[in-house]
Amino acid sequence: MTGIYLDNNATTRVDPDVLAEMLPLFTEHFGNPSSMHGFGAAVGGKIEWARKQVQALLGAAHDSEIVFTSGGTESDNTAILSAIEAYPKKKEIVTSVVEHPAILALCDYLEKKRGYTIHRIPVDAKGDLDMDAYRKALSENVAIVSIMWANNETGTIFPIEELAALAKGVGAVFHTDAVQAVGKIPMKLADSAVDMLSLSGHKLHAPKGIGALYVKRGLRFRPMLRGGHQERSRRAGTENAPGIVGLGAAAQLALVHMTDENTRVKALRDKLETALLAAVPNCFVTGNPDHRLPNTCNIAFEYIEGEAILLLLNEAGIAASSGSACTSGSLEPSHVMRAMGVPYTAAHGATRFSLSRDTTEAEIDAVIKVVPGIIDRLRGLSPYWAKDAARPKEFAPVYS
Amino acid sequence: MTGIYLDNNATTRVDPDVLAEMLPLFTEHFGNPSSMHGFGAAVGGKIEWARKQVQALLGAAHDSEIVFTSGGTESDNTAILSAIEAYPKKKEIVTSVVEHPAILALCDYLEKKRGYTIHRIPVDAKGDLDMDAYRKALSENVAIVSIMWANNETGTIFPIEELAALAKGVGAVFHTDAVQAVGKIPMKLADSAVDMLSLSGHKLHAPKGIGALYVKRGLRFRPMLRGGHQERSRRAGTENAPGIVGLGAAAQLALVHMTDENTRVKALRDKLETALLAAVPNCFVTGNPDHRLPNTCNIAFEYIEGEAILLLLNEAGIAASSGSACTSGSLEPSHVMRAMGVPYTAAHGATRFSLSRDTTEAEIDAVIKVVPGIIDRLRGLSPYWAKDAARPKEFAPVYS
Repeated sequence: MTGIYLDNNATTRVDPDVLAEMLPLFTEHFGNPSSMHGFGAAVGGKIEWARKQVQALLGAAHDSEIVFTSGGTESDNTAILSAIEAYPKKKEIVTSVVEHPAILALCDYLEKKRGYTIHRIPVDAKGDLDMDAYRKALSENVAIVSIMWANNETGTIFPIEELAALAKGVGAVFHTDAVQAVGKIPMKLADSAVDMLSLSGHKLHAPKGIGALYVKRGLRFRPMLRGGHQERSRRAGTENAPGIVGLGAAAQLALVHMTDENTRVKALRDKLETALLAAVPNCFVTGNPDHRLPNTCNIAFEYIEGEAILLLLNEAGIAASSGSACTSGSLEPSHVMRAMGVPYTAAHGATRFSLSRDTTEAEIDAVIKVVPGIIDRLRGLSPYWAKDAARPKEFAPVYS
Repeated sequence: MTGIYLDNNATTRVDPDVLAEMLPLFTEHFGNPSSMHGFGAAVGGKIEWARKQVQALLGAAHDSEIVFTSGGTESDNTAILSAIEAYPKKKEIVTSVVEHPAILALCDYLEKKRGYTIHRIPVDAKGDLDMDAYRKALSENVAIVSIMWANNETGTIFPIEELAALAKGVGAVFHTDAVQAVGKIPMKLADSAVDMLSLSGHKLHAPKGIGALYVKRGLRFRPMLRGGHQERSRRAGTENAPGIVGLGAAAQLALVHMTDENTRVKALRDKLETALLAAVPNCFVTGNPDHRLPNTCNIAFEYIEGEAILLLLNEAGIAASSGSACTSGSLEPSHVMRAMGVPYTAAHGATRFSLSRDTTEAEIDAVIKVVPGIIDRLRGLSPYWAKDAARPKEFAPVYS
């Protein structure tokens, strides 16, 4: 597949150096790390190396705080189920309206089937959390708070340390789905009140099918997968050794590239955003540009369908997305756009461009050239746009 | 790692052809299959190809009956949790004493924490299931029966069709952990009463971190992992596309090699077994040799420690195992040996040699040459052996 890939919040290309580290685990070092012979022992050492790399990326105090899982969804589900089982008398959960489905779907289920009270904290028009509502929701009845570090659609970053400290104040476990944040912004969990953190390999140039859950030392923990004693009995099942080593290698590389991500990649993102906002009438940035992931740009193009934009972008060899890949195929605007109160006529046209260290300036320049024409062409077909055609460009949407 | 690898029931080497199929999914075709652009679409098609290969290996009626998971443990846990949630009024589970920890540990948990009654059906000295006890345990209170297709330690095959038919007779869901059987013996689930079946990629030359759960069409199913709508909402989380394609390729190859497995590999296993039984006094085959996986040979060498055997085998470049890799490190004889009533003096020396299509006759000849000397050397150090030194070879153990 060739083309311009600006959908790195959906998934990233495996770094060739990551793949190179993984390859021996498929062939030469294929043993089961639990085995009592050389084939197994060789693998066990590599897994522990990988654990230290993830520890370093998160700034965690101990490598034993890293539990390898099959990905972000398993990490998220495990965190919530662990907390409610560890604190069975606490029947409330606090989360936000803009979480990933891996949190929201489980919370919906716990509400409907297990009688939990779910506090879904709203966000404002910029995607920032309603801190008053958050404070009000906290009580000693809350087993766990789960708030994402950064939003997958808009890139908006939540004030995780403040949120965690408030949660700890009422004795709740604090979990953060940091799938989009890990590898993009620096972290130091050793100095943090965060109890649990989810990450996914394939969002940071490791392969799909591997992730991790950070579990702070001393935290009460209950496993979701039960069986063998792998991962210190916190996650049963033969270790995905190639995936784990790939995640370790990707974590090591993410630290190396962290500066690039926050300077060069960020500058490319800003260039793209500034150019599109200038060239296209009636569009605006969703989320809060003041605290946002450096790689993410989500622009709502009014009066057109996001799916149509993606289709024409795809024809032009450009991969972007609307909403989350996990909920694509739906004709409704994303739950994140709806939660921010983005008007229907704009939410439908919300388009996410998510860059990575693979992104080049030439690619961004090409996208800047192509997008305005696509928007123009689609609006030419839109009855809504025609109806509002007289609307001046400086007539900012109510939303902004 | 070089040497003679006879621990294929713990894990197998990824077939080079499997790896070749996987590689493009890491690099060129790295998209998220849920995405709306070409990068994603290319991957979705490959996943559906893989699903059809697994369907073919299992002889399933529909490819939609295959749900990809992270491995055998997740499949096992999902099957049991699904059934008890789908039939919440049925508070009993039937399983066997020789199941894998992925079943037994979950059942222990459900017994202790959720009030379930667990019927753990015993086995006789040959590892065969007590059918009377099985029939007695079945009732309309049973939500799910979970019995393994073949035992991982001895290779003993259970009469799955008979067991499934009996379970269906009382309206229970029938699940089988077929992690050791899939790829080694032919299956046709389309004509079977089996409702759910677990398999693991890394036991059949696919990588670790991928598995599948067969779910018969029409069966009530409840997901364990909740989030996105992947796998028809039966298993949330971004698809492990390289792993899935690897499993598909491995399934295709397993069908190709099925005859070899049941002729050449079986003959090598028989050669190894016959030679060791002839050359070493006071040893015997555990499990039932009349219905057994073609690749598995488990020999109990009396009056020595299995761990010591493995150590010396390892020094000689031979990888074998005692018990399950998932429970290694324990000084107790395996739960399977204890369940069969293998005497303590023999159970400790139970050693599993598990072959694969990679195994050569030269390797088997080498093992036949080395093992008798190792046993002799260890027995020379054993106070128990010295005490019973006068015991004639024809004095068969009580067990056999």
